[in-house]
Amino acid sequence: MNPVSRAAERRERLRATAAERGLDAVLVTNLLNVRYLTGFTGSNGALLLRTDGADVFGTDGRYTTQAGAQVPDVELLVDRGTVGALARAAVRRGAGRIGYESHHLTVDALRALERVLADAAEGGTVPELTSVRRAVEDQRAIKDDAEIDALRRACAVADAALAELAAEGALRPGRTELQVSRELDARMLAMGAEAPSFETIVATGANSAIPHHRPDATVLREGDFLKLDFGATVDGYHSDMTRTVVLGGPHGTAADWQREIYELVAAAQAAGRAALAVGADVVQVDAAARDVIAAAGHGEHFTHGLGHGVGLEIHEAPGIGQLGAGTLAAGMAVTVEPGVYLPGHGGVRIEDTLVVMDGEPELLTLTSKELLVL
Amino acid sequence: MNPVSRAAERRERLRATAAERGLDAVLVTNLLNVRYLTGFTGSNGALLLRTDGADVFGTDGRYTTQAGAQVPDVELLVDRGTVGALARAAVRRGAGRIGYESHHLTVDALRALERVLADAAEGGTVPELTSVRRAVEDQRAIKDDAEIDALRRACAVADAALAELAAEGALRPGRTELQVSRELDARMLAMGAEAPSFETIVATGANSAIPHHRPDATVLREGDFLKLDFGATVDGYHSDMTRTVVLGGPHGTAADWQREIYELVAAAQAAGRAALAVGADVVQVDAAARDVIAAAGHGEHFTHGLGHGVGLEIHEAPGIGQLGAGTLAAGMAVTVEPGVYLPGHGGVRIEDTLVVMDGEPELLTLTSKELLVL
Repeated sequence: MNPVSRAAERRERLRATAAERGLDAVLVTNLLNVRYLTGFTGSNGALLLRTDGADVFGTDGRYTTQAGAQVPDVELLVDRGTVGALARAAVRRGAGRIGYESHHLTVDALRALERVLADAAEGGTVPELTSVRRAVEDQRAIKDDAEIDALRRACAVADAALAELAAEGALRPGRTELQVSRELDARMLAMGAEAPSFETIVATGANSAIPHHRPDATVLREGDFLKLDFGATVDGYHSDMTRTVVLGGPHGTAADWQREIYELVAAAQAAGRAALAVGADVVQVDAAARDVIAAAGHGEHFTHGLGHGVGLEIHEAPGIGQLGAGTLAAGMAVTVEPGVYLPGHGGVRIEDTLVVMDGEPELLTLTSKELLVL
Repeated sequence: MNPVSRAAERRERLRATAAERGLDAVLVTNLLNVRYLTGFTGSNGALLLRTDGADVFGTDGRYTTQAGAQVPDVELLVDRGTVGALARAAVRRGAGRIGYESHHLTVDALRALERVLADAAEGGTVPELTSVRRAVEDQRAIKDDAEIDALRRACAVADAALAELAAEGALRPGRTELQVSRELDARMLAMGAEAPSFETIVATGANSAIPHHRPDATVLREGDFLKLDFGATVDGYHSDMTRTVVLGGPHGTAADWQREIYELVAAAQAAGRAALAVGADVVQVDAAARDVIAAAGHGEHFTHGLGHGVGLEIHEAPGIGQLGAGTLAAGMAVTVEPGVYLPGHGGVRIEDTLVVMDGEPELLTLTSKELLVL
C-alpha cells in the first residue's frame, strides 16, 4: 500500500470514531497526528476531518508544493492562519459539532478558535466544540506494517552505529562521555537517520547511577560501567535502546557488585519481555520485571516505569508502569527498560524496543544483552 | 556571572513583572522558560515563582541529582505529577492569585490544574488563575551576555562546518541533497553542536525555489543553485544561516538570471541588516528589504517574513514581517533572510543571525555572502 492510501485508510478509521461520537468534524491540530493522518511532513499543517468525507488539509504558503505532493487526495487550503481558516471552512460547510484535541490545543488557541467560530457563524448557530481527547494517539498506539518497518529500520541504524563504534574501539578508557555521544549521533546520521531519537545518554562511573544523565566531560575509566541510551529516527519513527557495558583495558574487568546488578537487571528485563502479550495489563507487565528486582532487595533502586510506546514520538501510548492503565494489543511497539541505580556507585539499565504480537513479541533492537567487558 | 546567579537574576526580573500585575505567584510550565529561569536542562520541570521570593522548583525522580546541581538555590519538590504538586504547594503557602502560561498550557492541563487547586483549597478560597501571557518570552527576547556568547558559538560552528564541507569539495555536482545535509549535520555535531537547530534544508535546481524544501535524492548539477539553510545548537541556543551558491564544475557558471536574482536578494538583505536599529519598528525593518525586491518587480516572489528572533528556540520573539508588531531593542538576536523564488526555476535566500545593538548590529554568521561558484 502506498503512503497516500495508507493515510486515507487511517482517516477512515478516525472518521468512524468521529461518527460514533456524533461529531460532524474533527479539527486535528497536533502536527504528528496530522502527519499520521495525511503523510504531510512540514512544520505547519492541520486537518479538518469531516464525517461526510469532504476533508480539508490546511497549511501555509511555504508548503503549497509539498502539500500537493504529499496529500494529493485531500482538498488544500493555504492560509497563514491555518487553524482559523479551517474553522471558518467548517462553519461554511455547516458543522454543528466539531471535535478538537484538548490535550494539545493551548488555552489561548481554544479561545481564538471560539472567537473565529462565533464570527464565522455571523449570528447563526455557533458550532459546539467538544474534545476528542487522544483519539488519534489511541489509533497510533497500534502500528501498521509500514510503521513497524520504519521502526525496524530505525532500530537497525542504532544497532549498526553502536556495533561500529565498539568495533573501532571508540568506547575505551580515556575518552569522554561527550566524545562518545557525539560520535554515536554522527554515526547514526551517516547511516541514514534523520536525527537522534532524543538527546543521547552516555553515562559512565557514578554518572551511570543517574537515570537520565546528560553526557559531559567525564572521562571513561577502566572497570567502570558505561551506559548508553540512544536511538535513531527514520521516516519519523523513533528507536530506543539502552545497553550497559563494563570498560575493559589492561586491567578492566567486571567487579562482583557490577555483575550482580547486571544479571539482576537482565533477568528483570527478560521477565518484562516475556510478559509482553496481547491482552496483558500494563501494570502487570511492569510488575513482572519489578518483582524480580524487588525480590533481590533493590526495589527502591528502580525508580521509573518499565517502558513506553514508541513511534512518531519517543514516548507515546501505552505507558507501562505502576501508574499505567489498559492492556496490550497486537501491533503495539513498546520499550522494556528496567534499571537498578546505586547512587554514587553506578547503575545498569537494559532496554529493547519490541512489537507486541500474537505469540512472542518481535525484538527490534538486536544488539547483544550479554554483560560485555569492552 | 555564573549560571546559577544569572538564572536568579532572571527570576528577579520576572518577580518584578509578577508583582506589578498583582500576582502572588507564577506557575511557569513552558520547559524552555523553566530552563531560562533556573538553568535546568532536563526534560521535565516547572517553576513556582513566588512574589515573596520563596520559589519552588519541581521535577520528577529521574532528575533529583541534576536539579540539585543545576538549581541549588531554589527549594526542590520531587513529584511525578510535577505541576499538580507545585499547585498544591502554592495553595499551602497561601497564594490568592496565580499566573499561568495560557499560550503554553493545554486545555486539559488547565482543567487538571483547576481541579487540583479546588481540592487543595479544602473548602477555603480557591486561588484565582490568570494568564501572564508571554511574560517570560518577552523577557527572553532581549539576550544577556551569556546568551549572546552561546549564539556566537552556535553560529561559529555552522560557519566552520560549511567551510570544511566546501573546502573538501563535498558541495559538488553528482552528489545528492541528502548526502550534503547529512554531512553538514554530522560535521556540526563533531564540532560540538548538541544538535542541528532544525531540519537542515539543502535544495538544488528547481527545489531551491521551494522555501522550505526537505532534502531528498535530487542530484546536484552543474550550473544549478544550491541553497543551504541550517544551524547548530550550542548550550541550548540556536544559530540560523542560509547561503545560496552556484554549482561549478568544468562548465558550471552563474547564468544571468541567477546573478540577477542573487544580487537583488543580497541588496535586499543588506538593506534589512542596515535597518536593524534600536527602536526600529519591525514592520519597517521588513519593508526596508521588501521594498528593494518589490521595486525590481519580484515582490510576489518573496513569500515570507524577513526574519525572526532566535535563542532557546529557533523561532521566537520578535517576528520581523508585515504582520509583526513592536520595535527592536538592544540585545535582541534576530535573523534577516529575504528570498526570491521563481517556481520551477530556482530561488535564492540569504540569511544572517545578528544582534541588535546601539549603533551597528553585531553579525554572528560570518560566512561570505559573495555569489560563489563552487
